[in-house]
Amino acid sequence: MSNPMTVSAETANLSARVRRSCFFDATVRSGVKAFTAYNHMWMPTLFEGAVEDYRRLTEGVTIWDTAVERQVEVKGPDAARLMQLMIPRSLDGWKVGICRYVVLCDETGGVLNDPVALKLAEDHFWLSIADSDILLWAKGLALGRGFDVTVEEPDVSPMQVQGPLSTDLMRDVVGDWIDGLKFFHFRPFDIDGDIPAIISRTGWSNERGYEIFLRDGRFGSRLWDRFMTAGQRYGAGPGAPHQANRLEAGMLSYGADMDRSNNPYELGLDRLVDLDGAHAFIGKAALARIRAAGVSRVLVPLALDGPALAGSNTTRWPLTGPSGPGEMTSAAYSPRLAKNIALGYVAAGDRAVGTRVTITSPAGPITATVATAPFVTTSKRA
Amino acid sequence: MSNPMTVSAETANLSARVRRSCFFDATVRSGVKAFTAYNHMWMPTLFEGAVEDYRRLTEGVTIWDTAVERQVEVKGPDAARLMQLMIPRSLDGWKVGICRYVVLCDETGGVLNDPVALKLAEDHFWLSIADSDILLWAKGLALGRGFDVTVEEPDVSPMQVQGPLSTDLMRDVVGDWIDGLKFFHFRPFDIDGDIPAIISRTGWSNERGYEIFLRDGRFGSRLWDRFMTAGQRYGAGPGAPHQANRLEAGMLSYGADMDRSNNPYELGLDRLVDLDGAHAFIGKAALARIRAAGVSRVLVPLALDGPALAGSNTTRWPLTGPSGPGEMTSAAYSPRLAKNIALGYVAAGDRAVGTRVTITSPAGPITATVATAPFVTTSKRA
Repeated sequence: MSNPMTVSAETANLSARVRRSCFFDATVRSGVKAFTAYNHMWMPTLFEGAVEDYRRLTEGVTIWDTAVERQVEVKGPDAARLMQLMIPRSLDGWKVGICRYVVLCDETGGVLNDPVALKLAEDHFWLSIADSDILLWAKGLALGRGFDVTVEEPDVSPMQVQGPLSTDLMRDVVGDWIDGLKFFHFRPFDIDGDIPAIISRTGWSNERGYEIFLRDGRFGSRLWDRFMTAGQRYGAGPGAPHQANRLEAGMLSYGADMDRSNNPYELGLDRLVDLDGAHAFIGKAALARIRAAGVSRVLVPLALDGPALAGSNTTRWPLTGPSGPGEMTSAAYSPRLAKNIALGYVAAGDRAVGTRVTITSPAGPITATVATAPFVTTSKRA
Repeated sequence: MSNPMTVSAETANLSARVRRSCFFDATVRSGVKAFTAYNHMWMPTLFEGAVEDYRRLTEGVTIWDTAVERQVEVKGPDAARLMQLMIPRSLDGWKVGICRYVVLCDETGGVLNDPVALKLAEDHFWLSIADSDILLWAKGLALGRGFDVTVEEPDVSPMQVQGPLSTDLMRDVVGDWIDGLKFFHFRPFDIDGDIPAIISRTGWSNERGYEIFLRDGRFGSRLWDRFMTAGQRYGAGPGAPHQANRLEAGMLSYGADMDRSNNPYELGLDRLVDLDGAHAFIGKAALARIRAAGVSRVLVPLALDGPALAGSNTTRWPLTGPSGPGEMTSAAYSPRLAKNIALGYVAAGDRAVGTRVTITSPAGPITATVATAPFVTTSKRA
């Protein structure tokens, strides 16, 4: 299986137009084989190979350069007002030290991004963003409203430590307190006393894992090497977001699975929209109309019949269900399920688990069944 | 010379996360060899080879898929107000049918984008953008201010026809009226009576050329093929933005030569800022402070000594001038000058033409001289 997001890793081919992360040199030393451009920055996507990278991620522990998850920092007296204006979830009761998965919508209810948000203080937030310039969105809204808030991209570079052995590796580096860090909680911590970071129990995999939000890019190589060295006893190695693994979790990829033409109800993200609260947010009226009218298509997990796919899809593949047409957005072969799994839009009448659909792949028709995610239950949330 | 923005053109490697242009299939048929991701979309960067593509562009006529230049459409009663809020140039006297090169700045005076703007009607504009999500910026400002305006990305896909023979090819396809179309003017025109387009005398090359803003993506392949066929008598072929050619013109590449950390004065774009007019715009106060204080570095064209570069730079290269340090942002070998040319930041005291600097390339030091652009004068503006 080839990684779906590949660019030759020959750095001679990497345009200077796209930024390099503070971990770039370290990942080159660690043998990165492919990059993708994400938030105007190069991100590694492949090291030893898709199968080898998968095995290490699902059985051991992997270290990822995810500095492309740029942080949009919202800080100041009106910070909470701006956050609530952008986020359809009610932010009441959100405590400092907690991460929240949110969607940001425009005035039509279309999804602009699906970041993880961190509340660092009552007047201080980060949005850890997918691939769209939320910095400009947040700045535009803040300036337009005349809010007393600063919106900036700070010098913060997330590195992920993902895999079932991630807690063991983290404990060796940062100490026993990591055992008490609950899923979607975070804590500021200076690694080795001088590498400034925020450490959260989050990550873009289906495995137990952490994100280390490095707060000073000058420490990039040192932080990477620290974990690679400490991880040797666990067989740790470099890794990257993995299509099969994230599909096992049913995690969405902005751009691949949804964009501005989709609303949260189509994505099955109803829980991220609170229409009935008193708070106002961008898109509320549009989302109320959409909820009242009902959606005509829904994104669902799909289990595919047939032999292993050789790679991932490079375009959306049409599909047909009992209630009408749809399209598959992302697919990959899951080694531990020994099955191809996917996400795709089906007609709303076909959303029930067990519904059979037929996907038209370039190689011919593939039958598939609407499933539930996660496909594999791990120690991720334990 | 290799193209600086290369991704394998094996479409099996192109992630579905990045959008395809309406000309995608046509460019694959025409032998595209490399793509870059730009505005969340794949753009061809190489066809026969960098030298062959250059020769056709500078001696004949080339056809480019530049659909990645997404249009941000601003339309409605407050459209002109929103445009003036975003643009530091005074928009007084801007007539329908005229393009303007503009910069957009944030509240710190940092450059967010450098689009070409088209005025389609008194209440209807397009921003033909470089690689940042100005759609979100414009939407945020409009929603924040409560302006009565719609901001959307319409179904518009620019295709460029660039090269000294471009007028001949255009005349054959659209008629004699093209001879009267002045530089930076545009006109709506339905090609062959049914392909809806806006045609402008603009383009991202140092050659005479046109942009065809296709207004319905369903015609992508037909439009491409129409020009490839009509162009046979001129030796026309596929092409793409070309690093050496755009450097000959002194044209800036957003992301490579500047970003939000730069202001228009550093870029030598003083003419695009009108601080003394009565109109308000985002960043005016900051830009007034910057002008008063003076800038410490300036982006200048550089002529490099030494043998031809094998490719382009993939990172910025440090440089040193009599007044202090700087950095080279973009470089390439110009075949018709038989010389390496570049853009780079020098200390403000070193901006005078003829100043000598030393660039530290990975292969060793390169001496260079501050020059004037365009390096080559063509029929572009005639």
